[in-house]
Amino acid sequence: MGFEQAWLSYQKRETCGVVKNIDRIYASLQNPVIRSGAEELQAAFAGIIGNEPVLYADSEYEPGEGTIRLLVKEGLKAEGYHLFEEKGEITVEAPDANGILYGVFELIRHLQLGKNLNGKDITKEPVMPLRMLNHWDNMDGSIERGYSGNSFFFEDNQILVNDRIVTYARLLASAGINATVINNVNVKDSATWLITDRYFEDLSRFSQILGDYGIKLFLSLNYAAPMELGELNSADPLDEKVKSWWKHKMEEVFRAVPNLGGFLIKADSEGRPGPFTYNRTHADGANMLAEAVEPYGGLIIWRCFVYNCRQDWRDRKTDRARSGYDNFIGLDGSFRDNVILQIKNGPMDFQVREPVHPLFGGLTRTNQMLEVQIAQEYTGQQRHVCYLIPMFKEVLAFRTYVKETDDTVADIVSGKTFQQTRCGMAAVANTGNDDNWTGHDLAAANLYGFGRLAFEPELTAEEIAAEWITLTYGTDETVKEELLFILMNSWPAYEKYTAPLGIGWMVNPNYHYGPNVDGYEYDRWGTYHRADHQGIGVDRSHSGTGYAALYREPNARIYNAPETCPEELLLFFHHMPYNYKLRSGKTILQYIYDTHFEGVELVDEMVSRFEKLKGKLPDQVYERAMERFLHQKKHSREWRDQINTYFYRKTGIPDDRGRTIY
Amino acid sequence: MGFEQAWLSYQKRETCGVVKNIDRIYASLQNPVIRSGAEELQAAFAGIIGNEPVLYADSEYEPGEGTIRLLVKEGLKAEGYHLFEEKGEITVEAPDANGILYGVFELIRHLQLGKNLNGKDITKEPVMPLRMLNHWDNMDGSIERGYSGNSFFFEDNQILVNDRIVTYARLLASAGINATVINNVNVKDSATWLITDRYFEDLSRFSQILGDYGIKLFLSLNYAAPMELGELNSADPLDEKVKSWWKHKMEEVFRAVPNLGGFLIKADSEGRPGPFTYNRTHADGANMLAEAVEPYGGLIIWRCFVYNCRQDWRDRKTDRARSGYDNFIGLDGSFRDNVILQIKNGPMDFQVREPVHPLFGGLTRTNQMLEVQIAQEYTGQQRHVCYLIPMFKEVLAFRTYVKETDDTVADIVSGKTFQQTRCGMAAVANTGNDDNWTGHDLAAANLYGFGRLAFEPELTAEEIAAEWITLTYGTDETVKEELLFILMNSWPAYEKYTAPLGIGWMVNPNYHYGPNVDGYEYDRWGTYHRADHQGIGVDRSHSGTGYAALYREPNARIYNAPETCPEELLLFFHHMPYNYKLRSGKTILQYIYDTHFEGVELVDEMVSRFEKLKGKLPDQVYERAMERFLHQKKHSREWRDQINTYFYRKTGIPDDRGRTIY
Repeated sequence: MGFEQAWLSYQKRETCGVVKNIDRIYASLQNPVIRSGAEELQAAFAGIIGNEPVLYADSEYEPGEGTIRLLVKEGLKAEGYHLFEEKGEITVEAPDANGILYGVFELIRHLQLGKNLNGKDITKEPVMPLRMLNHWDNMDGSIERGYSGNSFFFEDNQILVNDRIVTYARLLASAGINATVINNVNVKDSATWLITDRYFEDLSRFSQILGDYGIKLFLSLNYAAPMELGELNSADPLDEKVKSWWKHKMEEVFRAVPNLGGFLIKADSEGRPGPFTYNRTHADGANMLAEAVEPYGGLIIWRCFVYNCRQDWRDRKTDRARSGYDNFIGLDGSFRDNVILQIKNGPMDFQVREPVHPLFGGLTRTNQMLEVQIAQEYTGQQRHVCYLIPMFKEVLAFRTYVKETDDTVADIVSGKTFQQTRCGMAAVANTGNDDNWTGHDLAAANLYGFGRLAFEPELTAEEIAAEWITLTYGTDETVKEELLFILMNSWPAYEKYTAPLGIGWMVNPNYHYGPNVDGYEYDRWGTYHRADHQGIGVDRSHSGTGYAALYREPNARIYNAPETCPEELLLFFHHMPYNYKLRSGKTILQYIYDTHFEGVELVDEMVSRFEKLKGKLPDQVYERAMERFLHQKKHSREWRDQINTYFYRKTGIPDDRGRTIY
Repeated sequence: MGFEQAWLSYQKRETCGVVKNIDRIYASLQNPVIRSGAEELQAAFAGIIGNEPVLYADSEYEPGEGTIRLLVKEGLKAEGYHLFEEKGEITVEAPDANGILYGVFELIRHLQLGKNLNGKDITKEPVMPLRMLNHWDNMDGSIERGYSGNSFFFEDNQILVNDRIVTYARLLASAGINATVINNVNVKDSATWLITDRYFEDLSRFSQILGDYGIKLFLSLNYAAPMELGELNSADPLDEKVKSWWKHKMEEVFRAVPNLGGFLIKADSEGRPGPFTYNRTHADGANMLAEAVEPYGGLIIWRCFVYNCRQDWRDRKTDRARSGYDNFIGLDGSFRDNVILQIKNGPMDFQVREPVHPLFGGLTRTNQMLEVQIAQEYTGQQRHVCYLIPMFKEVLAFRTYVKETDDTVADIVSGKTFQQTRCGMAAVANTGNDDNWTGHDLAAANLYGFGRLAFEPELTAEEIAAEWITLTYGTDETVKEELLFILMNSWPAYEKYTAPLGIGWMVNPNYHYGPNVDGYEYDRWGTYHRADHQGIGVDRSHSGTGYAALYREPNARIYNAPETCPEELLLFFHHMPYNYKLRSGKTILQYIYDTHFEGVELVDEMVSRFEKLKGKLPDQVYERAMERFLHQKKHSREWRDQINTYFYRKTGIPDDRGRTIY
């Protein structure tokens, strides 16, 4: 397997301003992160401009035209940078090495985008303290919910340490990502042994590479490790032997593996072990681990994805949407300082449309991290194009009303609302060992976009997309225009031709791909649409499961009534008759028919726009993506026809425009 | 893994008549099959009566009381026997060794059943010439559609030759089975190599064991073997090189493996290779192989399970039910004498209810074999009890009207209709390496019953069940009564609580277990119910796919009209409104509700009857079966509730008795 450079392919570009004459870079080269930045600059200048500046130690610094200086200097928030040009000299000032590196990549972006640097003066500070990827890679090389090949971290239960990891680290750093969890949250088999000397040597070389690009290594932990590693017969977090085991283990791990940030834990969820086994709380479990990693500055990131996955479909009282909230709200304030709760964007599971998770705004005394998924598990699995940054923007902008101001999800997870520093945003990654990293070439926009968004949430989705397009494919205006159209319409299109009005699911069980309206309807996962002859939707208002009341006012009130509920979430919150009139005057049924036809039309337009790019994109990119577009064309029709047919057969009411439904 | 003796556990029984004094058996012991019979008699007498007779060569024969004589003598049809008692001497006369063996087992059955032999005079000839099992065992040890453990033929790509195979052969022979295909019809990987010297040595020892019990070994063939075994680049049946390859191969195989009966082939079906690749017909393909095995008296058994498994669910013209007929009817009369077409009982795939396959009665110049499935793929997978002999009886009794008399399926496959000798009945086997052979203890009744039915189709399903119960569990009357009730009600119960009125499917795709009404509705397999708000069923009348017209009159006319169509097949042949009144006066919808409640009630009764047998059955039998009964109780409710809920939600019409539907 080869691998490409994605948005870091430094190709000759027309650039403006001072940059042509740069021939000297001064930096504290003994710092490995700063050295990475300096070398990245060399490579970028060599590729984009055609001349490679020489590196000098900062102690040799002499001011003058044609100079870049990377200078550590107090003043800004951690990882921030100040990039400015004055008299032909470019300076990147930052309070730490990471800040230098991010300033360097800002500078390189200017080169790639052909932006003038003359007189520029840019100050940036990352908004989210933690900007993290979660890889669900297994040590046998498979990836849970992986749609772009196998793992490039693991193969045959070994850790791979090679050039690809260096490029991986460069890609992450360039997008502003500063942390990564490399193994699946479902920790089994060999992965349990990552915290033993079986893997320390490789892990430590691996971690060093990440560290050179300012990226902290995190691992997913098996909560049952004290038992599975063979020494104890309990994992009870209040058992002194268990506590002591973890303390010794953590001492051992942190000593052996440099640049380790901490651990991610999925406990008591979907069959994983956890503190519930011992009648302990999640706080007991998390705090026990947090205490053990505290001496090393380690973090414990604890997932809130806990629900009853053995529900009876006949039971209309239990509501999976409530479970994350119900399991954790009572623990608010009882977690140690170095614990972060990681909360999915919605209460279900990465559907194309969900309300924001009610724990955001619910918790007020707990470190929180937002978990999104750029692996397109439920959004087309990187065979359909689905640019997700617009969805993440909506989530971040959601007002929780936890305070009068600074109350959005972005405010909370950036630490602004509660003056926290252990918080941020994590994305379940979409990478694999495909040459292009992400299967669908356009899916790389989600990887790049996630990092940029976490660093600068005020960027618009269009800005990020446009930036990614030019970095990756150059400055051709047609390429930019058509790809921008495709990316910006892709999530709306996917929402239109799949499950309607926030109801979600309607996919094939297990692998989560392709339409299956009743696929989860009689199953044990708590994911129902309750469609009958007259109506559809789940009553989560006060007359139903009461879920709507978990939000702060006025959200609770708004969600509680169909008249005020945002229509895109109508069926998530309410069971509605098909003939209910939406604000447009259309019935729900006609809306379903219309959006499903529209979704397919949008796909057709996306494909014909993409066809215009033949010859303007590298051939292999065009062909790889076109193959997927043709599949999407066909598969979106499958969605349209199955969904429309399902409702037509159930209601007997035809489309008012007489289009074919089967 | 241990294994039990099933219906051959020779335990002390009260018997009547002459049998107690038997102390000498005379037989041609140099014939291995007759020796098997004689030794079986020894074992049976030792176990059941308590004294073991001594074996003598037939040349030493002297008449007298206390003697059994096994005598080969012409007169009867092949494999027939004449068993009689005269003056305290028992004689088994038969035209061949197999006949002797079957006569011996008839005699042993008398011992086990406690039946008087005084003055008995029984003549039997097997009705079906071929009485065959088809095992879908893979060489890695797995079994396709296997529900009772792994293969006891294969493990890690090796053939197992051991005691279990001997017991397997004894069980088959005792039920009258005279042929078996030991490897899966989907021949892949190592199984392709079964016809190479990699396996000849083991295969030949294995075959010898079967041969000692009068059972011919058959193998499933990979049609692409000439290519996959690495020598040719084609498998075109008209290519001289291919023909010659097969001729040499068959010479080699028949020379190396004794007791080989021939081959079973699944070609051009569900992704398997076949003659279609070369624009040749199935006759071309089958005849080419038939010519190659002809010098060795070999048979080619060619499966008719050929259909388009990439259908578009939107397409209402293509009808999978037609495909077997359409693919083969034009070839009638063009197959060589040593080819047999193996035809499934119904046109779909072993559903709980199907019409009889229209090729029966369609073909008039072709050897035919009926394929049934005792592996309960679609009938509860040996976790639900489902005694299938009543279904097979109905199939055998079906009048095809191909002639005025002797026109039933039984007449055709016994060779009576067209004076054929290469015909019979095959069952896809339900065995595995579980101790009790069949997972569910009661599923063994299907294995035993299949053999008995193929030998003597005039036996009733009750007679066979009663026989099996006593052979297996002894003469306790409660055991007999309750198990007979359970067995005889099991197929009706399963039909009641699963897919109604012949429509079939409604199961989870792939593994075919558990309810999923729309599971196959939008898939590519040609298996649809077409349920909408008003009605359900597939129109296969003249106004639909025309399938009904494939039958001879009066069947075609009867199936073509809803008024005359047998109601249990109504939705197979017609799309009907839910409010259509059945002959009982009930609407279809109410019939669905009622039968689903009744089916569960029947299961409850079966379980409470089984509970009475605690202490009367061996403990491990009771416990194994009870565990499955408890699952069936729960799972039949899942079926009931999902099916009823599906139709209630689709129609909005409640149960007229007000029972709970969700």
